Amino acid sequence: METINAVLPPFIILDSHLEEWLKEDIGRGDRTTQCLINQGEMEGTARWVAKADGVVAGLPIAKRVFQLLNEKVDFTTLVKEGEFCERGKVIAQIKGSLDALLTGERVALNLGMSLSGIATLTRKYVEKIEDLPTLFVDTRKTTPGLRILEKYATQVGAAINHRMGLDDAVMIKDNHIAAAGGIEKAIKKIRSRIPYPLTIEVETENLEQVKEALEYQADIIMLDNMKPDVMREAVKVIRQHNSKVKIEASGNVTLETIRAIAETGVDYISSSASITQSKWLDLSMKID
Amino acid sequence: METINAVLPPFIILDSHLEEWLKEDIGRGDRTTQCLINQGEMEGTARWVAKADGVVAGLPIAKRVFQLLNEKVDFTTLVKEGEFCERGKVIAQIKGSLDALLTGERVALNLGMSLSGIATLTRKYVEKIEDLPTLFVDTRKTTPGLRILEKYATQVGAAINHRMGLDDAVMIKDNHIAAAGGIEKAIKKIRSRIPYPLTIEVETENLEQVKEALEYQADIIMLDNMKPDVMREAVKVIRQHNSKVKIEASGNVTLETIRAIAETGVDYISSSASITQSKWLDLSMKID
Amino acid sequence: METINAVLPPFIILDSHLEEWLKEDIGRGDRTTQCLINQGEMEGTARWVAKADGVVAGLPIAKRVFQLLNEKVDFTTLVKEGEFCERGKVIAQIKGSLDALLTGERVALNLGMSLSGIATLTRKYVEKIEDLPTLFVDTRKTTPGLRILEKYATQVGAAINHRMGLDDAVMIKDNHIAAAGGIEKAIKKIRSRIPYPLTIEVETENLEQVKEALEYQADIIMLDNMKPDVMREAVKVIRQHNSKVKIEASGNVTLETIRAIAETGVDYISSSASITQSKWLDLSMKID
Amino acid sequence: METINAVLPPFIILDSHLEEWLKEDIGRGDRTTQCLINQGEMEGTARWVAKADGVVAGLPIAKRVFQLLNEKVDFTTLVKEGEFCERGKVIAQIKGSLDALLTGERVALNLGMSLSGIATLTRKYVEKIEDLPTLFVDTRKTTPGLRILEKYATQVGAAINHRMGLDDAVMIKDNHIAAAGGIEKAIKKIRSRIPYPLTIEVETENLEQVKEALEYQADIIMLDNMKPDVMREAVKVIRQHNSKVKIEASGNVTLETIRAIAETGVDYISSSASITQSKWLDLSMKID
Amino acid sequence: METINAVLPPFIILDSHLEEWLKEDIGRGDRTTQCLINQGEMEGTARWVAKADGVVAGLPIAKRVFQLLNEKVDFTTLVKEGEFCERGKVIAQIKGSLDALLTGERVALNLGMSLSGIATLTRKYVEKIEDLPTLFVDTRKTTPGLRILEKYATQVGAAINHRMGLDDAVMIKDNHIAAAGGIEKAIKKIRSRIPYPLTIEVETENLEQVKEALEYQADIIMLDNMKPDVMREAVKVIRQHNSKVKIEASGNVTLETIRAIAETGVDYISSSASITQSKWLDLSMKID
Amino acid sequence: METINAVLPPFIILDSHLEEWLKEDIGRGDRTTQCLINQGEMEGTARWVAKADGVVAGLPIAKRVFQLLNEKVDFTTLVKEGEFCERGKVIAQIKGSLDALLTGERVALNLGMSLSGIATLTRKYVEKIEDLPTLFVDTRKTTPGLRILEKYATQVGAAINHRMGLDDAVMIKDNHIAAAGGIEKAIKKIRSRIPYPLTIEVETENLEQVKEALEYQADIIMLDNMKPDVMREAVKVIRQHNSKVKIEASGNVTLETIRAIAETGVDYISSSASITQSKWLDLSMKID
Repeated sequence: METINAVLPPFIILDSHLEEWLKEDIGRGDRTTQCLINQGEMEGTARWVAKADGVVAGLPIAKRVFQLLNEKVDFTTLVKEGEFCERGKVIAQIKGSLDALLTGERVALNLGMSLSGIATLTRKYVEKIEDLPTLFVDTRKTTPGLRILEKYATQVGAAINHRMGLDDAVMIKDNHIAAAGGIEKAIKKIRSRIPYPLTIEVETENLEQVKEALEYQADIIMLDNMKPDVMREAVKVIRQHNSKVKIEASGNVTLETIRAIAETGVDYISSSASITQSKWLDLSMKID
Repeated sequence: METINAVLPPFIILDSHLEEWLKEDIGRGDRTTQCLINQGEMEGTARWVAKADGVVAGLPIAKRVFQLLNEKVDFTTLVKEGEFCERGKVIAQIKGSLDALLTGERVALNLGMSLSGIATLTRKYVEKIEDLPTLFVDTRKTTPGLRILEKYATQVGAAINHRMGLDDAVMIKDNHIAAAGGIEKAIKKIRSRIPYPLTIEVETENLEQVKEALEYQADIIMLDNMKPDVMREAVKVIRQHNSKVKIEASGNVTLETIRAIAETGVDYISSSASITQSKWLDLSMKID
Repeated sequence: METINAVLPPFIILDSHLEEWLKEDIGRGDRTTQCLINQGEMEGTARWVAKADGVVAGLPIAKRVFQLLNEKVDFTTLVKEGEFCERGKVIAQIKGSLDALLTGERVALNLGMSLSGIATLTRKYVEKIEDLPTLFVDTRKTTPGLRILEKYATQVGAAINHRMGLDDAVMIKDNHIAAAGGIEKAIKKIRSRIPYPLTIEVETENLEQVKEALEYQADIIMLDNMKPDVMREAVKVIRQHNSKVKIEASGNVTLETIRAIAETGVDYISSSASITQSKWLDLSMKID
Repeated sequence: METINAVLPPFIILDSHLEEWLKEDIGRGDRTTQCLINQGEMEGTARWVAKADGVVAGLPIAKRVFQLLNEKVDFTTLVKEGEFCERGKVIAQIKGSLDALLTGERVALNLGMSLSGIATLTRKYVEKIEDLPTLFVDTRKTTPGLRILEKYATQVGAAINHRMGLDDAVMIKDNHIAAAGGIEKAIKKIRSRIPYPLTIEVETENLEQVKEALEYQADIIMLDNMKPDVMREAVKVIRQHNSKVKIEASGNVTLETIRAIAETGVDYISSSASITQSKWLDLSMKID
Repeated sequence: METINAVLPPFIILDSHLEEWLKEDIGRGDRTTQCLINQGEMEGTARWVAKADGVVAGLPIAKRVFQLLNEKVDFTTLVKEGEFCERGKVIAQIKGSLDALLTGERVALNLGMSLSGIATLTRKYVEKIEDLPTLFVDTRKTTPGLRILEKYATQVGAAINHRMGLDDAVMIKDNHIAAAGGIEKAIKKIRSRIPYPLTIEVETENLEQVKEALEYQADIIMLDNMKPDVMREAVKVIRQHNSKVKIEASGNVTLETIRAIAETGVDYISSSASITQSKWLDLSMKID
Repeated sequence: METINAVLPPFIILDSHLEEWLKEDIGRGDRTTQCLINQGEMEGTARWVAKADGVVAGLPIAKRVFQLLNEKVDFTTLVKEGEFCERGKVIAQIKGSLDALLTGERVALNLGMSLSGIATLTRKYVEKIEDLPTLFVDTRKTTPGLRILEKYATQVGAAINHRMGLDDAVMIKDNHIAAAGGIEKAIKKIRSRIPYPLTIEVETENLEQVKEALEYQADIIMLDNMKPDVMREAVKVIRQHNSKVKIEASGNVTLETIRAIAETGVDYISSSASITQSKWLDLSMKID
């Protein structure tokens, strides 16, 4: 898999969160470190080491965490963001005030470990279908407060992001359809009120709904929890009608089922699993 | 296992986070719902259903999420917080403005699912040793921003919390010992500067360190990554010297190893696994 | 023109701004009102009156401003949001604590007047082309801090919103093209990294660029500052190639030129003028 | 007109607003720029050019906007703040990371354009009376969130600021007089409770009220919406009684009426027009 | 001394501070109370009792503190704000959720005790001169974060407030005079740039400076650290020249010296002593 | 008394407060300084001088205040934090932009003066018992918003901190005991729910309660308002039963009574007096 170039927003967007997270851990002060070492008094060096095999994600964020405590901390990555590392691999070297290293360690590692865990599991999903044209996308099932970072991690894992929130794309689900009185009414009402570059996705459960969504010009049609043969039929119907409509499959996506779903010819397979079923990748920080 | 009474801080502490998380998801507006339904225009009812077996946690928080969107939403829990639910169980009924239900659904579920996942795995660890006097405790390996809630979830899972941050207890690790020039110096320096009710825990790797920590009156001695027989020996040494010192075991704690560790006689076994290795418990919200 | 149903985000998104704006005006206290009237001591009634002809916008926001000062304030609108009102028209009646009415008056009116000014001018642009299929859209030239509200006001004025920020759609401009090394490279690089429901718009200055944007599948093609006949030709080229691509005209849009631009057959005409060239609509609050 | 030295508060006061405004535009990331250019990867230079004649205001703020994105951006102004520039004039040169230039462009320009628009119109009002001793002052009719900056812009335009909020001076209006039971009671009650350096202004509608305000020692008397000859008479009455009382005229101030009002001999003419009736001054940023 | 009617800003200004202060004390939760009592489970009643003689201040703030924890708490004051209470006096009765009473007790009392301490000492200063026309005013020497509340307390103590910050009045001190190159230049430069209702105070150390300040029309002249006879002379000079100029004495103000200073005929005596030399008034909360 | 090494949290914890306090004083701008001096235009030097005898505290914070206004300000301390200084002593030299010096002066001094006042009085309490093993500790009676800094000042004064908030230690008071139904129930319920390193203190009023607290293994027993002989008896009882339990005396602690209390053999004497009864230490800033 070639290099992934996932995109983080500028730090003006992230810094307030990183500071909040440092404050969450430090509270009224790092009693242990601060009683022993004055700020900036001692220098230290440390290494981050992978303690399990996996795809590393979050290094630029970890770097920033330390630098918010002491802007002179040098954090040199020894692997590329998104690189698969084997257990024992040294992934970064850190040099700077020992107090900053000790006080920032936990927050930096917590971010690195959880994001690497997501990237690692995402990569597994992606690898199952990487020779096919179908792409793997994430969902809005993300840990509250970490939407941007967790979706960054799925990107590092080689997934494509789905919408970031309720505001940057429309997803019409069954309850919306019911509230509006049908797919036609829902699409028309929404289309006339949203920022015009936004796309409309309709969740469908059967071929009838697929056809209705097609007719009223949904931009994306989600085939939700359909059996493979129904899905295949839906893909055919859509392609015949409008080759530009994007097709997304969703529901019951596992490492076992993903390939069969991709083979139905859908453009995208969305799943929260690579976030919600991920475990942290074990990383440790060794101070020399 | 009897009823767990885990304690949440008052909402004056949590609300700003819950609001932040709603804002993260809503962004500049819930395009889909708001284009279709005016605020407060339609009433709806919904059920939360367990889609897998597990221990449910986070219901009071989910309730609050909806009520921050519309204070009249009624969220009635049908199970106790911390109750083990089988797949298919209806765990809550919700009634209120349909727009609030649709807009708040994802954030509420994301919290409920991730916290229930933690509670479920924690319960498994606790059950392995529930007939023994040893208690299972969490660590500071928590998702940034969610420290209070994730530690609440381990409590719901029947664990005991370890310190909440760097400020409410002292933990002297190898790097601190090195920086201070030994356990004695580290303990003395810290003891003279911290709020006096705070306790001091020392991480030890061998019997020599255990004895030094004992001599200089650590309140808690952590046996880090010791082999069972060394651990047993350490427990013996400590009990003989001072029966009030608390003993914590740490390192390589799994569902397979935890019982053997507990049988060494330690008071506490700490592990991040019940958080970092947990998967979300699948819950869904069905709007009627 | 039929009723406009512009959509505001839920107040959980807006309240912190409204509070900030009240604080900006009140500072360390409303010296005049508070020295004379104790909180809640006197009741008052007031009317909002149009002092010039125009389209009224911002009434739900004005209402909220007063209610943030005193939740019992009753603010009854006598006209519909987006209704054209003639000078002298009473547009709302307010009843509640006199101190809340006096302290909140300026902020509420400032919002109502500036938003109504935008809605009024927007309506004029829209009316020039309302019998044509072309739609009038706004831009990102909005007063800092007021993006959501000013774009709400253009909606009230019967415009369609363009993207809300740098994150909910892609706009490739000349500098981006130069930095990427051409339209092809720019589109491809961006397409592979953005959330997949997002659309890509390319700003073009001539037919060659139009064709390149078409070839590499831009979702929206902006014809920037083109002469009418070039524009007409561009529309023809695009329609022949792909009837789904949306066409936006931009540049030199005035009340005089807009109709001619629309007659070239473009789908959208974007202009900041209805915001940046608007004047506040004069409204006054008469306390009885 | 000689050089204007308008005063901005230190950036510790402004920065949180500037950051908020950048976040409003960037949202979850500048999709276009960030997908194409890594942070700090490419350098760029740009020029700000006036696209219409007007008084330029806001350059120190625009500079800060870019520097909040990248502290190394060099923003060199080629005209003085407050200088009248003709169309085509290059007003600033910018050099720095291309991504910071592209991402910050819109917010910086939005501020520069709106503030320059205010300064430009303000200058026109001031010029009408600059040979007379009467001074032109602004009001509290300012865009919510922009009070300090818009009043800075009127200063750049050569106006004098009126009070900044409800707390730094007292303005007794008709409703306050009614609530207090007369001018005498209102002044006395307020005088005894406010910080003693604060001044009290009374809004008067006729000579009787002027005399009452004088008698009870208002510091400033506003002649509200009076006919020129009544105004002249009021000025005479006030000057005879106490030459230190400041006289402010208000109401129906336009570019046509302002000179006649000034000629009645009032000290100040207040009007919101230079803010509420201003249009943005067209500025553009050309990246080389 | 008749009833004092000190003025607090509306709670929209104060609430964020009160919440911050509750969060400071509660931290991650009130471990003691919350482990014992569920929210809202038990009702309680309590009394606030004066444990020393003094002027009570801060009751409306204490009430709000409890209500931010639980809006149903009833806090009934049994004395007037600003009333002198003898030791043992019950000053308020509180009724509501026991957990809110216990959790809010410390913050509410800390505010009540410190503000009452200030009001008590202020009252002593005021009483020394209450038969004279001279008024006692506070300064900017206030505890950071508590400016509004501490100045409210001096008002409750019967003092008059001086300016609230660096922005609502001008105070030209020796360093400013030096930087400007003399009193004349300083006054002129400042007068031309400030909001016009603002007043200018000049700090003078001798008669020469007094005369210069008078000549260039300072609004307030501060006689700083002058001997009584110099002060008397200064008052004479000022009154002869302009009876409207306000005269403030400052420096070396104690309970012993204040009367002699007042007898020089100055209008105001400013001193930080009633804040900086105050001690908390002992109050206790007895839960029944 | 040897050097005190009091510990401040890292500035990432304090900065938002320091900025807030600067904003409180500056408001919409430092009218006086900013009208006279452009930012960074003039350099200045200044000295901080003690105007009374006392223990100096807060110098690192004062330094930071100036540097938040202008990062190049050089603030060199000439005495050690916690050093006793006689009147007239120059304690710091400051060099930097004159505007930063003038604008920051008041906030920096307000912090330095109030914290030094606390340190000075605390030192007096500590000196009364410094030859005895008993230690002097503070309480939660601190000025809202200043908990960390005021407790830092008592440390500088040579006291030991008690708990920082309601969350980092448990204190069971009479009302808690009543609510729980006795000391036994209270301790047991709390012990099972708190983070395990936290200690439990029980407030006792008589020997019976002391014994109950001992029996149920309180970590700290507070002897509240006991007569010296009862206190002595309580100490004896506790020492005999468990020599590790810490004993704290509280109530009626004054400079006159503290020694007698210490001589009862308690480990700690807690009192709010050194904060609530302190007066600001007079410091002044002389600009050269």
